[in-house]
Amino acid sequence: MPDFWGPNRVDINVRASNTLSMDTLTEYTTRVARQARQASRQLALTSEIQRNQWLHAAANGLRAATATLITENARDLEAAPGYGLNAAAIDRLRLTEARIRDLASALEEVATLPDPLAGEIDRKVRPNGLVVSRVRVPLGVVFFIYESRPNVTADAAALCVKSGNAVILRGGKEALHSNLAIHRVLSDTLEACGLPRHAVQLVETTDRAAVGEFLKLRTLIDVTIPRGGKDLIERVTREATMPVIKHFDGICHVYVDAAANLEKAASILINSKCQRPGVCNAAETLLVHASVVDKFLPLVGPELVQRGVEVRGDARIREYWPNAKLATEQDYRTEYLDLILSARVVDSLAEAIDHIDTYSSHHTETIVTEDTTAARQFTAAVDSSAVMVNASTRFNDGGELGLGAEIGISTDKFHARGPCGLVELTSYKYVVIGTGQIRG
Amino acid sequence: MPDFWGPNRVDINVRASNTLSMDTLTEYTTRVARQARQASRQLALTSEIQRNQWLHAAANGLRAATATLITENARDLEAAPGYGLNAAAIDRLRLTEARIRDLASALEEVATLPDPLAGEIDRKVRPNGLVVSRVRVPLGVVFFIYESRPNVTADAAALCVKSGNAVILRGGKEALHSNLAIHRVLSDTLEACGLPRHAVQLVETTDRAAVGEFLKLRTLIDVTIPRGGKDLIERVTREATMPVIKHFDGICHVYVDAAANLEKAASILINSKCQRPGVCNAAETLLVHASVVDKFLPLVGPELVQRGVEVRGDARIREYWPNAKLATEQDYRTEYLDLILSARVVDSLAEAIDHIDTYSSHHTETIVTEDTTAARQFTAAVDSSAVMVNASTRFNDGGELGLGAEIGISTDKFHARGPCGLVELTSYKYVVIGTGQIRG
Repeated sequence: MPDFWGPNRVDINVRASNTLSMDTLTEYTTRVARQARQASRQLALTSEIQRNQWLHAAANGLRAATATLITENARDLEAAPGYGLNAAAIDRLRLTEARIRDLASALEEVATLPDPLAGEIDRKVRPNGLVVSRVRVPLGVVFFIYESRPNVTADAAALCVKSGNAVILRGGKEALHSNLAIHRVLSDTLEACGLPRHAVQLVETTDRAAVGEFLKLRTLIDVTIPRGGKDLIERVTREATMPVIKHFDGICHVYVDAAANLEKAASILINSKCQRPGVCNAAETLLVHASVVDKFLPLVGPELVQRGVEVRGDARIREYWPNAKLATEQDYRTEYLDLILSARVVDSLAEAIDHIDTYSSHHTETIVTEDTTAARQFTAAVDSSAVMVNASTRFNDGGELGLGAEIGISTDKFHARGPCGLVELTSYKYVVIGTGQIRG
Repeated sequence: MPDFWGPNRVDINVRASNTLSMDTLTEYTTRVARQARQASRQLALTSEIQRNQWLHAAANGLRAATATLITENARDLEAAPGYGLNAAAIDRLRLTEARIRDLASALEEVATLPDPLAGEIDRKVRPNGLVVSRVRVPLGVVFFIYESRPNVTADAAALCVKSGNAVILRGGKEALHSNLAIHRVLSDTLEACGLPRHAVQLVETTDRAAVGEFLKLRTLIDVTIPRGGKDLIERVTREATMPVIKHFDGICHVYVDAAANLEKAASILINSKCQRPGVCNAAETLLVHASVVDKFLPLVGPELVQRGVEVRGDARIREYWPNAKLATEQDYRTEYLDLILSARVVDSLAEAIDHIDTYSSHHTETIVTEDTTAARQFTAAVDSSAVMVNASTRFNDGGELGLGAEIGISTDKFHARGPCGLVELTSYKYVVIGTGQIRG
């Protein structure tokens, strides 16, 4: 089907070639960004009802396009070994009927979330009678860079459009055909719902230089959100001329306090480390108070062994676990993303806090304790996006913390911190209603 | 008094020399930033009472140091003509007894503002029993760059410390001796109140390269706030590796709608343009609906003339004001910061919104109208930090909008928009209280 992409696909030749001259690439990225800016202006004036209608239409469209999506996905699957993808990565890339149903349901769930643009944030009446409100507004244009799972294409588009933002999606080359097919449904349903087609655009060239070109366009793009490995985030941070919502690494700690319930501590440690070791909110380091180390380590040891966790501990840990490797300074700075746990004995809560202050990536830390004072000190002193008491680090997640869905987890302190949902994709403006007031 | 700066002034030799080698400068800026980071950790754990005690102590200290401040200020005043400062700039630089009293009172006013770190932003209980709160936390370390008025030194320090942030102050070279004397009082009173001395540091070299060195330190400095001319802001934006709260230009519009009360419109236009023409929230452009132009221009013309306002209008404006120069495209893009007004006739509200969308710097715009629908359309469609109805653009100011005091006005949409007061100097973290929950 030579005309599958339709007459609007003027950029099909861009997609077809990865050896564009920089001029052509600059023209392409500028055009995409200008279209996004134009669409964002229109989107900002749409109603919640219109935006939700689109989410339902897109969900239906994706279900209806199941056969096409699977066909296009097959092209990516076929090419995947050539990109060096392993079996697990190929599995994540795969679209099945069930996964397409999930993908569609996720859009419908976003439709049920409260409109972040509704109502006022606050309102006050000034002594001179001016009524000063703050209302939420979309950030504008989001440039979203992500890796190979094609479901992210639909998720990110849903969150951006629901919050009134236009989005430029730059997915991984491994999922290009799947993403193009999903994007086709999203665009067509946008138009059918009276929303601007360019509210969701997919970058159709896999040329890495395209990312650099978009990162220059700070007058057209309001924020860049990279989601992927550390190299990607570092490159984007270095090159971006606009704000970036960064999602750096998670070196997360479980601290077992002197007053810990050790059963809870064992269960929280195992869950934080093992439930999904490859993600950012998995724990990397165990800190144990010296007064409970003799009871806690024997209690939790067998399950760590059974789950295949490799421990790298300090000398005092190795008194109880002689098979543990000796942890180096570098171990405490490492996000393993694997079944490896660094461990250290501390003599006080203060020492635990100091260790975290030195080595944490300020993502998520948890204290296990029945002592309210210790819990208060820990939550006050530890400066991470989420500080937990008696709960697994794995709960630092948009869904789990009640944001509904997230586009990423910010490890910055600026604008948004922790999970970024719909509200975090907005800014605000002051609306000031007077009766002719002037300043004296 | 050779030991005036006291034994802690190890960097006095830095201040004394503007020809430091880059190595020495890097060492100096890194040390200052490390000290700030350390102080910020301590500050984050202080109570509101302590921080307010300091504000009062600093106010008393400044009053007590009046004679010294005036002596040191005299050194700056003496050097001022050599820096090319004109009479108005020299006047802004001058400290008098009355101005020192005002400076002290401003600190006491900051003490009366609500603690931005108090309480919780929100709290929810998740279905699994986790109690999820968000609490405000300081941003950390603020690098604040400003120009010659010495009162800004005390104001900025007050806002940063009250919000739990450490600040590195980089004032203009023209105010160096005044700033050093003010800073001495601030540091001494910090120590006396049990707060870290390095919570407020003043950059004691006037070497411009120092700014560049600080802008590299993104792991130590959380945010840079430049306040000054466009060149400064552009340089900082270009070089900064950390987030920047930008305060770009204000190309602000007054739109006189078809349904305007023309007396109100005249008074709002005169106030917006003339009350203080050199500031960012002064109006630069008048848009008048064609249906009222024949009544409005004759009404407001004499006062504009009397106040010495030069008008640059389009052809339709010049039918009524033949003495007006013809406005060029460039006029509509210019922040005059002077008694100059560009003016244009529009045929509809939509045309006014389009003009603003094209030419505004998205700082402040106002509509004068008695038509609620027009007011709603204008406030919905215009994407500026403050959108006013029947009020002077001059009200876009922290004090006037009820923030108490401001460290700047953000023209960005990211993190904070419009006036930035205490709350805008904070971030937040999630505090999650569980009873042993793990993720399934």
